[in-house]
Amino acid sequence: MINRDAFRSCMALMPAAVHIVTTGSGLERIGVTASSVASFSDDPPSVIVSFAENSASAAALKDSPTFCVNMLRAEEEGLADVFAGRTGLRGVDRFAHGHWDALDTGCPTLQSAAMSLDCELLDRKFLAGRVVLVGKIVAHRIDEACSPLVYQGRSYRRLAA
Amino acid sequence: MINRDAFRSCMALMPAAVHIVTTGSGLERIGVTASSVASFSDDPPSVIVSFAENSASAAALKDSPTFCVNMLRAEEEGLADVFAGRTGLRGVDRFAHGHWDALDTGCPTLQSAAMSLDCELLDRKFLAGRVVLVGKIVAHRIDEACSPLVYQGRSYRRLAA
Repeated sequence: MINRDAFRSCMALMPAAVHIVTTGSGLERIGVTASSVASFSDDPPSVIVSFAENSASAAALKDSPTFCVNMLRAEEEGLADVFAGRTGLRGVDRFAHGHWDALDTGCPTLQSAAMSLDCELLDRKFLAGRVVLVGKIVAHRIDEACSPLVYQGRSYRRLAA
Repeated sequence: MINRDAFRSCMALMPAAVHIVTTGSGLERIGVTASSVASFSDDPPSVIVSFAENSASAAALKDSPTFCVNMLRAEEEGLADVFAGRTGLRGVDRFAHGHWDALDTGCPTLQSAAMSLDCELLDRKFLAGRVVLVGKIVAHRIDEACSPLVYQGRSYRRLAA
């Protein structure tokens, strides 16, 4: 088995989109930055999101019947930092940054996102220390012309033109 | 629920690394291009790979106790096409392209890859029409200086310098 430092170096090399996953409404809104989001199935249209089982993100999101996955555009590094906790803001205070509304589920939807996927929980598994959520996409908003923010090599990156 | 065309447009916008997932040895070698590979857990170091349950990839890989995930570098679009079946090659014939060796499990490892993660199957689930494999990484090879190939917007992309 490889050691944890080697594993972290490997995972850091893998490019991934940067998302803010949200749930709740009003003063109970919660949002966290996550890069482990992927396409899951087209029948029904669904995505898979995972979190460490003992993380604050998992505690907030694992019991929610709905959530929204907001993929950030290249210019939104600042928002990624806020929802990753790097500015010290917690809970609903994070939503003072960015402009938020809602689609079908009522979960917070970032108006400026490259893409928002509004989801109902379809399946949930606990696998090897991770909480894995599968969300059926019930509504979406997308700007196909924009370029997404990428996290790779331990820093924010953009795609070449 | 959103329709399948809308879903495909959404997933196409999400940037992802491009991998060749391999198994077997000698004349029984099998390899397929996959972009649904992600970090899973650091305890034990593991990755998650998924395939449509009724695909040829799933048939070849779901019963294998070991597999190797080879992340391609920016210059390797041609290899991605070969292992996605776009050149018409099947089975072991695909391995005439690229230089291959093996690490611990014996599964084919691409010498030029940005990263190779040699895995033992840790867990397998059937979720919403997908086969989900969790692989414990038992050996690895990495070139941290290289830039990975990205698939986004229905085409191969590179990261900006």
